[in-house]
Amino acid sequence: MNNDLSSLIQALRDFAQARDWEQFHSPKNLASALSVEVAELLEHFQWLTEDQSRHLSEPKRAEVAAEAADVLLYLLQLCDKLDIDLIEAARRKMIVNGEKYPVDSSRASSKKYTDI
Amino acid sequence: MNNDLSSLIQALRDFAQARDWEQFHSPKNLASALSVEVAELLEHFQWLTEDQSRHLSEPKRAEVAAEAADVLLYLLQLCDKLDIDLIEAARRKMIVNGEKYPVDSSRASSKKYTDI
Amino acid sequence: MNNDLSSLIQALRDFAQARDWEQFHSPKNLASALSVEVAELLEHFQWLTEDQSRHLSEPKRAEVAAEAADVLLYLLQLCDKLDIDLIEAARRKMIVNGEKYPVDSSRASSKKYTDI
Amino acid sequence: MNNDLSSLIQALRDFAQARDWEQFHSPKNLASALSVEVAELLEHFQWLTEDQSRHLSEPKRAEVAAEAADVLLYLLQLCDKLDIDLIEAARRKMIVNGEKYPVDSSRASSKKYTDI
Repeated sequence: MNNDLSSLIQALRDFAQARDWEQFHSPKNLASALSVEVAELLEHFQWLTEDQSRHLSEPKRAEVAAEAADVLLYLLQLCDKLDIDLIEAARRKMIVNGEKYPVDSSRASSKKYTDI
Repeated sequence: MNNDLSSLIQALRDFAQARDWEQFHSPKNLASALSVEVAELLEHFQWLTEDQSRHLSEPKRAEVAAEAADVLLYLLQLCDKLDIDLIEAARRKMIVNGEKYPVDSSRASSKKYTDI
Repeated sequence: MNNDLSSLIQALRDFAQARDWEQFHSPKNLASALSVEVAELLEHFQWLTEDQSRHLSEPKRAEVAAEAADVLLYLLQLCDKLDIDLIEAARRKMIVNGEKYPVDSSRASSKKYTDI
Repeated sequence: MNNDLSSLIQALRDFAQARDWEQFHSPKNLASALSVEVAELLEHFQWLTEDQSRHLSEPKRAEVAAEAADVLLYLLQLCDKLDIDLIEAARRKMIVNGEKYPVDSSRASSKKYTDI
């Protein structure tokens, strides 16, 4: 895991420990909290058109950034509790995705996106 | 943004571009996809006790790692589209959280966790 | 609660009891399961345009109906465990919404929908 | 569809029409909104133990009832837009579930609940 993420993970550990919050942070609870934070992010987009979502106002963009941060922070805590190396898992998943969606047969017309 | 995340972001850009998938990747759609991936992660925990969630079998832990990876990959793509520096946003959020939950008044008894 | 919903609730109770599943159905777990089912519903729409979502194929519409059913079934079980009369709660919420969004000041231009 | 749900559906139609909100209510958007409401419900349970979730205070139970109502109201609107009979879909799903989880082989030990 790289330096930036490692220092965030350490800061999250210290934060929870100082407040005696570790007792609440079971993986089950953290997965729920992650889900709630993602919904707070989605809420910003629910009534926008796709085009509007590409051109957020600056205040809205800042709110979305704060929600995205919450998502990352809970995701890091969940992975920390389960001893999962998130970057390594992401790299592996990109390889799996490359095999699942070969370039030639996956262009635009991909069933993934066009199954209405 | 650090090297590991930067190289993931670049890989995700190349992946989508090679498949002509960028047209589907509006922030609105990516926020929905993120939400769906988080639910696939939550699904692994929904019927477990908190204690069971702390002691996953190795195959289960590997499945959770793969879902956590999907969450990170969509989160990175969403932030990339909106020009959000996720690490910077997370650091700022930790400062905000430190002010919102001072150590002394936030120990275990915090309303955040004990409001039943 | 009306007859149709009452008979569904009774059928859900019998179903869980016959399988000794009540032990897993804490409100906390049912709320997670509800969240997972809603994501399976959302998954059908995540890459569609709004217009495509209004014109689903018949097989897709049937899949969405099955997911919507799952959402209702978990929602009914959650409310049953907490002794909540869902229809009564919905009627009350419509009254609250009517006061929160008066017709005159809430037409189309409502901040609810136009805050980009 | 029974009388109680039919009158709620009609009230929801009138409510949206009076405010000119139908333009925002594509099935895609309603599915996102449903997802956001379910997360607001889940939020009440995220840090509770399962046992605490079975014994909510009266104010908390009222808040959960209001969120459950929001979930039903968006679910009804989504089904209305797609011409889905929700009660009929739920009945069909119960039959499917009965075949998928036969009583004898699905008691407590069911893989559904014990796969850790």
